[in-house]
Amino acid sequence: MKALVYEEYTTDDDFSRILKIREIAEPKPKSNEVVLQVKAAALNYDDIWGMRGKPLQVPLPHISGTDAAGEVVAIGDDVKNIKIGDRVVSHGNLTCRTCKACNEGREYDCPQRLVWGFQTGPLWGGYCEFTHLPEVNTVKIPPSISYEEAAAASMTMMTSWHILVGRAKIRPGQTVLVMGGSSGMGVFGIQIAKLFGCDVITTASSQKLERCVEIGADFAVDHRKEDWHKEVYKISKNLAKEKGKPPGIDVIYEHIGGTHWKKELTLLKYGGTLVTTGATTGYDVMTDLRHIFFKGANILGATQGTRAELEQGLYWMSQNKIKAIIDSEYTFENAVEAHMKMLKGKGMFGKIIMKPD
Amino acid sequence: MKALVYEEYTTDDDFSRILKIREIAEPKPKSNEVVLQVKAAALNYDDIWGMRGKPLQVPLPHISGTDAAGEVVAIGDDVKNIKIGDRVVSHGNLTCRTCKACNEGREYDCPQRLVWGFQTGPLWGGYCEFTHLPEVNTVKIPPSISYEEAAAASMTMMTSWHILVGRAKIRPGQTVLVMGGSSGMGVFGIQIAKLFGCDVITTASSQKLERCVEIGADFAVDHRKEDWHKEVYKISKNLAKEKGKPPGIDVIYEHIGGTHWKKELTLLKYGGTLVTTGATTGYDVMTDLRHIFFKGANILGATQGTRAELEQGLYWMSQNKIKAIIDSEYTFENAVEAHMKMLKGKGMFGKIIMKPD
Amino acid sequence: MKALVYEEYTTDDDFSRILKIREIAEPKPKSNEVVLQVKAAALNYDDIWGMRGKPLQVPLPHISGTDAAGEVVAIGDDVKNIKIGDRVVSHGNLTCRTCKACNEGREYDCPQRLVWGFQTGPLWGGYCEFTHLPEVNTVKIPPSISYEEAAAASMTMMTSWHILVGRAKIRPGQTVLVMGGSSGMGVFGIQIAKLFGCDVITTASSQKLERCVEIGADFAVDHRKEDWHKEVYKISKNLAKEKGKPPGIDVIYEHIGGTHWKKELTLLKYGGTLVTTGATTGYDVMTDLRHIFFKGANILGATQGTRAELEQGLYWMSQNKIKAIIDSEYTFENAVEAHMKMLKGKGMFGKIIMKPD
Amino acid sequence: MKALVYEEYTTDDDFSRILKIREIAEPKPKSNEVVLQVKAAALNYDDIWGMRGKPLQVPLPHISGTDAAGEVVAIGDDVKNIKIGDRVVSHGNLTCRTCKACNEGREYDCPQRLVWGFQTGPLWGGYCEFTHLPEVNTVKIPPSISYEEAAAASMTMMTSWHILVGRAKIRPGQTVLVMGGSSGMGVFGIQIAKLFGCDVITTASSQKLERCVEIGADFAVDHRKEDWHKEVYKISKNLAKEKGKPPGIDVIYEHIGGTHWKKELTLLKYGGTLVTTGATTGYDVMTDLRHIFFKGANILGATQGTRAELEQGLYWMSQNKIKAIIDSEYTFENAVEAHMKMLKGKGMFGKIIMKPD
Repeated sequence: MKALVYEEYTTDDDFSRILKIREIAEPKPKSNEVVLQVKAAALNYDDIWGMRGKPLQVPLPHISGTDAAGEVVAIGDDVKNIKIGDRVVSHGNLTCRTCKACNEGREYDCPQRLVWGFQTGPLWGGYCEFTHLPEVNTVKIPPSISYEEAAAASMTMMTSWHILVGRAKIRPGQTVLVMGGSSGMGVFGIQIAKLFGCDVITTASSQKLERCVEIGADFAVDHRKEDWHKEVYKISKNLAKEKGKPPGIDVIYEHIGGTHWKKELTLLKYGGTLVTTGATTGYDVMTDLRHIFFKGANILGATQGTRAELEQGLYWMSQNKIKAIIDSEYTFENAVEAHMKMLKGKGMFGKIIMKPD
Repeated sequence: MKALVYEEYTTDDDFSRILKIREIAEPKPKSNEVVLQVKAAALNYDDIWGMRGKPLQVPLPHISGTDAAGEVVAIGDDVKNIKIGDRVVSHGNLTCRTCKACNEGREYDCPQRLVWGFQTGPLWGGYCEFTHLPEVNTVKIPPSISYEEAAAASMTMMTSWHILVGRAKIRPGQTVLVMGGSSGMGVFGIQIAKLFGCDVITTASSQKLERCVEIGADFAVDHRKEDWHKEVYKISKNLAKEKGKPPGIDVIYEHIGGTHWKKELTLLKYGGTLVTTGATTGYDVMTDLRHIFFKGANILGATQGTRAELEQGLYWMSQNKIKAIIDSEYTFENAVEAHMKMLKGKGMFGKIIMKPD
Repeated sequence: MKALVYEEYTTDDDFSRILKIREIAEPKPKSNEVVLQVKAAALNYDDIWGMRGKPLQVPLPHISGTDAAGEVVAIGDDVKNIKIGDRVVSHGNLTCRTCKACNEGREYDCPQRLVWGFQTGPLWGGYCEFTHLPEVNTVKIPPSISYEEAAAASMTMMTSWHILVGRAKIRPGQTVLVMGGSSGMGVFGIQIAKLFGCDVITTASSQKLERCVEIGADFAVDHRKEDWHKEVYKISKNLAKEKGKPPGIDVIYEHIGGTHWKKELTLLKYGGTLVTTGATTGYDVMTDLRHIFFKGANILGATQGTRAELEQGLYWMSQNKIKAIIDSEYTFENAVEAHMKMLKGKGMFGKIIMKPD
Repeated sequence: MKALVYEEYTTDDDFSRILKIREIAEPKPKSNEVVLQVKAAALNYDDIWGMRGKPLQVPLPHISGTDAAGEVVAIGDDVKNIKIGDRVVSHGNLTCRTCKACNEGREYDCPQRLVWGFQTGPLWGGYCEFTHLPEVNTVKIPPSISYEEAAAASMTMMTSWHILVGRAKIRPGQTVLVMGGSSGMGVFGIQIAKLFGCDVITTASSQKLERCVEIGADFAVDHRKEDWHKEVYKISKNLAKEKGKPPGIDVIYEHIGGTHWKKELTLLKYGGTLVTTGATTGYDVMTDLRHIFFKGANILGATQGTRAELEQGLYWMSQNKIKAIIDSEYTFENAVEAHMKMLKGKGMFGKIIMKPD
């Protein structure tokens, strides 16, 4: 079968030098696994980290791809709830399912956690014609959702659900700030917060603000402006006056870090919550602790989510309340181009889809 | 290998007629399973239900035994954390590990839940020389705990932990009433409530009251007296006066049902909690709903618990803060006698252990 | 000022014999109180219990009225957030604000809790031209809500919010069964469950089913039919098939008791929740405990709610997502007629309003 | 009556210049207040901030004193549960008791929150012969606790209880790190974590380590050493090996800030919690966000606590499970000396008590 493979890292982002289509053997399922014929996969930023070999050296030869959707073509002897012909999407959070965290419903805290298609291998990820996964790492796709949509949703929707519902426990009437609302994560953050009856303010670069509003944000602010946070606060004050609730933000969905961090903290209400799940503009941030302790704030970390959270998100996609946003589609032949688009981010809105052909 | 087998039910409790030692094939592990040489198992009341074929018809030929402890002698290819030679005890709650409830840390709510050694078979339970279980259904035994103690603890300690810690969320300083404190469940209930810094009142028949106090109860009341509940309330009132807290019970650990139910409800404080996990004296109870809604009470059901809860209980056994109470030990040869003792309950205190020889 | 007063009880429901309009002195505010000119009050069933002197003997002479809305005309020296001219509605749950329950945000569990206009007096309730309340027992009415709507909402909306949000913690996608959906309580139960994104099944008598659907219920079932619960289960099964979720009910809003209780319990999913807050058809119910413990169910009692919950409900009324349903309006002159209508219940839908003139 | 008063600020810490004993009028209770004859008060660091006029300018003329214990000598008309002759201690967190946060049991999030004896005045604090407080801001002292102990406990014990129990929700068996274990806060942190069955590691300067162990810490580490955090981690690893639990810290009680912050974050387990409540060595800290999001950590802010939390702490003092640690006692005459001792901190262990004479 065809697979998108690299056998060495490249630190200069010249992906065309390493990323090749290879012919490899088709997988057979272990007793607890299913094999699916991949119909659509979705790009994630960890594809780039993998090819760079930084911040961690992924197993070589490597197949990337954490989000894959397809049709089941084989199952192992102990598979219970999936059968051949089922349409499934990957739940890319591989965990032991045995430790205390897993057994308490916190698989994201499993010390043996691995991101499939990133930390796994050699040759184990979604960018190939057929791939295999433990049954528990696949979820059935409701009939009204396409393979492309399922792949575009899996990791980012689950993570957004985990952040807002699992961690921040958003409730109707809260004011939620979604940083980076045009990103793969942000588009789900906006929609989930609206589903829960929140007032949603988001940030993006100026040319993407309008689309953020189209997918549901009540307000969108240009986060490249120096005083973006003052604009956000002013909106929250108007909301406060109009709706009779206090100004400030109840919940911040944060994955940007860098220089935005410190300003975000000033926006939180007493008892407010910020969930951080990444730091695309820098890990090392300055914090004035008084913003945390004086206000009784909650700063919560999050990585990925649970299978149950993925299922809940898919349920609401099937009810047409959440939509996957697809930026564009590529095939293995033009994989380099796809990854370059994600790397540059220019004009991108939503997820990039990759198909075998 | 030797196994304790029955091939038909008996409604007259003449267990000697059906319960036989048979020679059967030794099990081999599936890929996710371990095989253990059983060193000690413990009796549970569902052994009796199984032999009666009521309230459900267990698979035949049948091997009972939900609590088994032993040494691992073989493991399947996909076993990750257990190795040959490990000392393990069964976690008898077989669940799918895939559904929403399982993935949210509520394996006790799994619709596919099966009690191992009761609902499983044919020929799959703990009363044999070698048995097999999924890795996730075994837990390592800390070095200071014997096989007998581990078997005596598994199901009842986990259930008690789930009831008091998982469901009732007991906190230091609360007044806890453990019904039936001399039972296999009750002895753990008393000790767990003391571990958490609660004042513990328990009930038992008159000749077992003293032993309940020996294992930690602060007060023990004869629940065969008509006015047992008035005595409990009086104790709570004295506690209230002495310690400056309100009279009444914060948490009731209930597994008796029948005529005791209605009196128990009168004892709860405003906002108090009763957890029910069985009904040895009758399922159908009369309830005056005013005791529930006027007081804002919480009546919570519970069955079994999670692997993580079993591990927490074993941890505290290893720290000598919880002890398994062993009533007596039997071998396969006198299994009928063992089960008759449990059935009659006379003079029994703690768990009955069963060993191959 | 005019007030609606009775000086003795009547066990024959001949309210015309005892209920009189009297001239009494206008109240002055204590230091922590406000005085309001009553513009609209709402009837509650405890008005009837009061006149009957059963199940408790209310203070005499008595003024009923637990829900009153009006304009503030005087304030005490220590009042902080309310000023003369403010439009306010009563929060009829008088509590000590000092005990552990009150300080933990559970004022409904306060042992000194009194229902204003029912347990209070002599001569302290809402059916008069001017009444007084502690500041903390009044809440400002958002501008878009009328006095009539505020009075019609206060106690029943708060209680419904407490039951579904505070106690059952409803979440989007759950299937909620609201018993008695045409009652003062039920109409809010339906709307709150819809606000939270739930699928709502309700029950009512046949002629009121349509109106229940008009205010938001997805399905309405005649609860006078012997097999009403089978119909509910069938709906849940269809929902399950259509939406890909398990059949059964996640949350039951129960205030009927009697013969419905036992059937309701059969409808709960594993881990499901029933909240009980009254028992209009009988307090003493039979329960098969297996439905509670085997399914890990939660049976929660509730009475009234918190000031914060009332404010949240009013917020959503101001956002037009919840509407008070007013059955009819009366004045002191025809108070007997109003109470007879409530007593008989025939054709009633929503709350009955009482005005001074 | 005598009171300790200052009428201007002093930025040079020359307290003797401003702090004087004055004769002022005795207070009378408002309707909801009690007046107490102060028997003992306790120093807090905000006394110093007050005299400096930084970071906020307290009302002048000023009486400091947030923790005061005494005998009730007068009560207002609406006082319900306190009577003349009662022994009470201040709950120094003055809040509105009316807002959403207060009504939800989160008085520490009240936007109108004021620290009594710091933000209040003119002339309203604990360092005088008689002072007045709302009833709800006093708590009865159990008989076995002295006035000195009650004053030494009030604010710091409540805050520690709030941090560990209310916010971090510590559970038996967790590994808890209490930073600054010899401080007024830390001594309670150690004891509360032990009461809850945790393994406790604390930090202090070298000469105070032994006393930290005397009051209950299992391990004490010199936090002035560059590699203090490596020593803490090593202890957690030994604990892990000995007790069969994972290495690392479950809960960090943090009130130091500065350069310790970054090292503390490296110690947290997956899903671990750090509660911050102050920053005696500096507010502005560098954070590597990966320690938060990759581990799913919880960084929670806290200030003060609730009246209910103070009562719970006093309960455990009355049961002899928590002890107030008194460093020394002073009278108004040598108040300057007392404050200088606190400012320098040298050799101090526990709280400094101030008495009228």
